[in-house]
Amino acid sequence: MFNYQIIIEYDGTKFFGWQKQKKGKTIQAFIEKVLKKVLKEEIKLVGSGRTDKGVHAVAQSANFQIRNEIERKKRFLLTMNFFLNEAGISITKIKKQNLDFHSRYNAKMRTYIYIISNREGGLVLDKNRAWLIRKKLNLRAMQSACKLLEGKKDFSTFRSSSCNAKSPIKTIKQAKVIKKGEMIKIIFKSRSFLQQQVRSMVGCLKFVGEGKWSINDFKKILKKRRRSSCAPPAPPEGLYLLKVEY
Amino acid sequence: MFNYQIIIEYDGTKFFGWQKQKKGKTIQAFIEKVLKKVLKEEIKLVGSGRTDKGVHAVAQSANFQIRNEIERKKRFLLTMNFFLNEAGISITKIKKQNLDFHSRYNAKMRTYIYIISNREGGLVLDKNRAWLIRKKLNLRAMQSACKLLEGKKDFSTFRSSSCNAKSPIKTIKQAKVIKKGEMIKIIFKSRSFLQQQVRSMVGCLKFVGEGKWSINDFKKILKKRRRSSCAPPAPPEGLYLLKVEY
Repeated sequence: MFNYQIIIEYDGTKFFGWQKQKKGKTIQAFIEKVLKKVLKEEIKLVGSGRTDKGVHAVAQSANFQIRNEIERKKRFLLTMNFFLNEAGISITKIKKQNLDFHSRYNAKMRTYIYIISNREGGLVLDKNRAWLIRKKLNLRAMQSACKLLEGKKDFSTFRSSSCNAKSPIKTIKQAKVIKKGEMIKIIFKSRSFLQQQVRSMVGCLKFVGEGKWSINDFKKILKKRRRSSCAPPAPPEGLYLLKVEY
Repeated sequence: MFNYQIIIEYDGTKFFGWQKQKKGKTIQAFIEKVLKKVLKEEIKLVGSGRTDKGVHAVAQSANFQIRNEIERKKRFLLTMNFFLNEAGISITKIKKQNLDFHSRYNAKMRTYIYIISNREGGLVLDKNRAWLIRKKLNLRAMQSACKLLEGKKDFSTFRSSSCNAKSPIKTIKQAKVIKKGEMIKIIFKSRSFLQQQVRSMVGCLKFVGEGKWSINDFKKILKKRRRSSCAPPAPPEGLYLLKVEY
């Protein structure tokens, strides 16, 4: 057997998320179908983690095992992308790994970025690529609140009710808000995240940016560890899985 | 009379360029139609310059004169964008100017950016937003060649045969190539440009990046001042009018 890791970019707009499911077009199922067509084998694709409906990836990482070696990697990429690109998926890299490499269990760090466009005019060049917020956000306040998310904490407040992780405790290695022109970018690094955690945190940071919540309010809802205290999660189109490190 | 300047973002993909013409949907004509609907007046929109079919703008500048003052600017933007956004156009700012302000003649500096994605995988998140070049480009060589474009020169080599500018002499204040991940960004600043000048220069820089031309070859074709010496112009989808300064 051979084990290959692939790096995948996708436009989540037209998919029902990463994870294969009974109904709706998913990224995992679509790539598996094309892998079977190209490699003439039933292939099981293991992703580093799920992304929700509408969430994008700049570099999702996945791996699959196969009986025959892929000798012409460049050609493999071209053929796969011939079938995938039109659907909004692109395999950008392929790498042979040891047989025990597992894209999910071996992942040491995941980086997500959330992009807000803070301006008056509707989005055109960034349509489906960012969250448009017309009201001017207070960057400093968002930055202060964001810093409070770093470290080992109980993130129950930011956890989807359908999340099935064993524990709500996660360690966020980095949480930062940066501004670039009219764009506000929020970056989170952690070994792993709870379901909808990033979008929930961003939804709360937006409340702080709008002045709806003070930093103290934000501290309180974090400590409450109750989903019902959370602001509405940010929409999926601003979220990108940016990097998975091993 | 009142004179308003507007800043416009557009996705050039679905348009036959900025300039109104007999056939094909153009940005200027589309905005004029919506202006008439919203302001109940026949409006003539003057752009800072044309952009070709498929070329985008982050911030095109235009102005129009009107009999009645626009008192509620925020509301004006919202209403205009309600009709424009779906078509791929967004007015991001509006500003009252003196009656003699002319978005084309008063422009002191125009900035264009050209984006190349230099990687194997087909474009998904940046589909219609960049030029995909699979062959690894030599950044240093492109940077050296690019520097040769700065200054006051005869740019006949890079001038479209249909260009009707009086003189082929232009002064490029800045021409630079920067790399950000797998993106190569080429930025040009000049008071004005010849028709297809930027795309023609980028097409030639690509030849240098691929090793098809040496720096010396590039120098030669620049000096030749002959359109027939130029490389094929870069495709429009990587080009953005970034800024117009007054």
